[in-house]
Amino acid sequence: MLHGVIMAGGSGTRFWPASRQHRPKQLLTLDGHRSLLQATLDRCQPWIPPERMWVVTGESLAAETARQLPEVPASQILVEPCGRNTAPCVGLAATCLAARDPDATMLVLPADHAIQTPRQFQDGVAAAVDLVNSDSQRLVLFGVRPSYPATGYGYIERAERLPGASLLGGSTAAFGVKAFREKPSVEVATAFLQTGQYYWNCGIFCWRARRILEGLARFEPELHAGLANLAASFDTPSWDTAVRERFPQLKSISIDYAVLEHDRDLCVLEAPFGWDDVGSWAALPRLRGADAAGNTVDGLHAGLDTQDCVIRSADGHLVATVGVRDLVIVHTADATLVARKGDDDSLKKLVGSLASRGLAGFQ
Amino acid sequence: MLHGVIMAGGSGTRFWPASRQHRPKQLLTLDGHRSLLQATLDRCQPWIPPERMWVVTGESLAAETARQLPEVPASQILVEPCGRNTAPCVGLAATCLAARDPDATMLVLPADHAIQTPRQFQDGVAAAVDLVNSDSQRLVLFGVRPSYPATGYGYIERAERLPGASLLGGSTAAFGVKAFREKPSVEVATAFLQTGQYYWNCGIFCWRARRILEGLARFEPELHAGLANLAASFDTPSWDTAVRERFPQLKSISIDYAVLEHDRDLCVLEAPFGWDDVGSWAALPRLRGADAAGNTVDGLHAGLDTQDCVIRSADGHLVATVGVRDLVIVHTADATLVARKGDDDSLKKLVGSLASRGLAGFQ
Repeated sequence: MLHGVIMAGGSGTRFWPASRQHRPKQLLTLDGHRSLLQATLDRCQPWIPPERMWVVTGESLAAETARQLPEVPASQILVEPCGRNTAPCVGLAATCLAARDPDATMLVLPADHAIQTPRQFQDGVAAAVDLVNSDSQRLVLFGVRPSYPATGYGYIERAERLPGASLLGGSTAAFGVKAFREKPSVEVATAFLQTGQYYWNCGIFCWRARRILEGLARFEPELHAGLANLAASFDTPSWDTAVRERFPQLKSISIDYAVLEHDRDLCVLEAPFGWDDVGSWAALPRLRGADAAGNTVDGLHAGLDTQDCVIRSADGHLVATVGVRDLVIVHTADATLVARKGDDDSLKKLVGSLASRGLAGFQ
Repeated sequence: MLHGVIMAGGSGTRFWPASRQHRPKQLLTLDGHRSLLQATLDRCQPWIPPERMWVVTGESLAAETARQLPEVPASQILVEPCGRNTAPCVGLAATCLAARDPDATMLVLPADHAIQTPRQFQDGVAAAVDLVNSDSQRLVLFGVRPSYPATGYGYIERAERLPGASLLGGSTAAFGVKAFREKPSVEVATAFLQTGQYYWNCGIFCWRARRILEGLARFEPELHAGLANLAASFDTPSWDTAVRERFPQLKSISIDYAVLEHDRDLCVLEAPFGWDDVGSWAALPRLRGADAAGNTVDGLHAGLDTQDCVIRSADGHLVATVGVRDLVIVHTADATLVARKGDDDSLKKLVGSLASRGLAGFQ
């Protein structure tokens, strides 16, 4: 059976002041309707019913995560007592899935990305499941065809096309994986794009739960042993205590470094859907559209001579703008941001500096 | 005796959203310590004690005005039931003053200007009082030497220097008045500056209360009759009712148009003090200074790459700025403004449009 695993432990400040330490991006309602987390669940419906959806999140986010996803069984919201990167996260979910369903296929989904074409997403997942069903050793990665020479993503260099894999009536294809390249310079990324052989690694994976555990056993045996030890407690009363005690001892490492970069059974499936990591406020117009003046507005706004701004206000607070352009203006109950649009690194730096400015309460 | 009359009925939106219909500029604490109204009182102390200070204000502002000026006797806070421009305002105060002190000298002071040199202000007033004492027919206007070709002010063209008037040891001078010129074009204003014969009319006047009433009697006899009629009720229990009933019937006209532009006994005293009408948020750096990055900040602020901004926040709300310059950012409990600095006319237009946008409550 196909299970969905939403990785929802992320933190981050790129959506400050709407996002905070205890209310990260995936819990925000950026499109005005559903949070990115909820949308991640939604786009798997109805073909992965909530009873087969799993969520891994952090302790401080667990209550809000459960509140936002009432459809998901409480036992399937796995709570990490602390963040240990993606290998323990994926491993924990695989351990639980395999305990319930030894032949489970596992679709790994980041909670904080946007996919604007849910139908094509479903098609892509079906193709990935076909690939796994036809060879249960396969680890399928979704590769997104890059649209610009991004320097902040990981790239997957594809190898030869998989023989016999004619997917979605030939409208997409799967390839072997030649190499991974993390965060290249803009020159290198430009060269990547020119070859046509590189994809963005969007963090969506599909594999047998058992198979990824085998990968962990082979390349990170200690980490695997820790997970196997935990597995014995799953669905018993001692589970919560076991996780709280033993999870923090697991090695902090990404699933890419732990398994994917070493394993030989990888394949990359060209994603047949539109993907957006919603990296910052500047991404909001892609998600929500913009008005005739290029403004993306959520909340009460009165503007004059205002262009290409992202404006967000909560609780009936009025944001008025005069003679401004290319700004991000976000009002929340206790803090307001006014920033040049696209100045994401500076925003990160600013939020990082709040504690040293005596403003830790706003982080 | 010298009495001070603060004209504090002004409304306006140039300091929106801090200023509102019922909380105009003079009631705001723009310098972080005292409101412009309070500062107007302060700079007359101790040489005009509060018992000789008078305030004329509007009904909706009366309570806050009295709260801000507890030193001023309640009977000397005169409340206009509606705004009728400055001639009825000055006339009302003159009427009351003359009733209490027939020989009163009256110093008329706008409530919403800033004077950064109180000592020189006191010297200037002393010189004006000397001019009035030496000729009780004189109407003394303070003229501010223009520093740029402003188009929003009234100009006073000076005539010949008053014979024998050596004021402040020769450091300032008084002149006859040749003409008034309201709000010239920038070309005309530039020409005014080049002649060296023009002053800004800053709205500070000095004269005998009786003398300005005589001027009103001569040039606006009906208005004067209305005031004389009111005078009979001053310091009686029927005063409030009388004002409420009869004041609205007075002609709405400025003291400039009503008397000053017709009277022959005018003189203009070159103001020996720094004067600022604090016309908009952009004036705040002159009032409060700016930090090394050119920012003028009042309230909680965290900035990165932020230059030449005016930032104001109330109630411990954090305003964070990244990569911006030349902005006015003002946060209040229910509304936040982000505007290009100096775009005052657009701000006025925007605030004027709030009602038609269904946002009248924010005006």
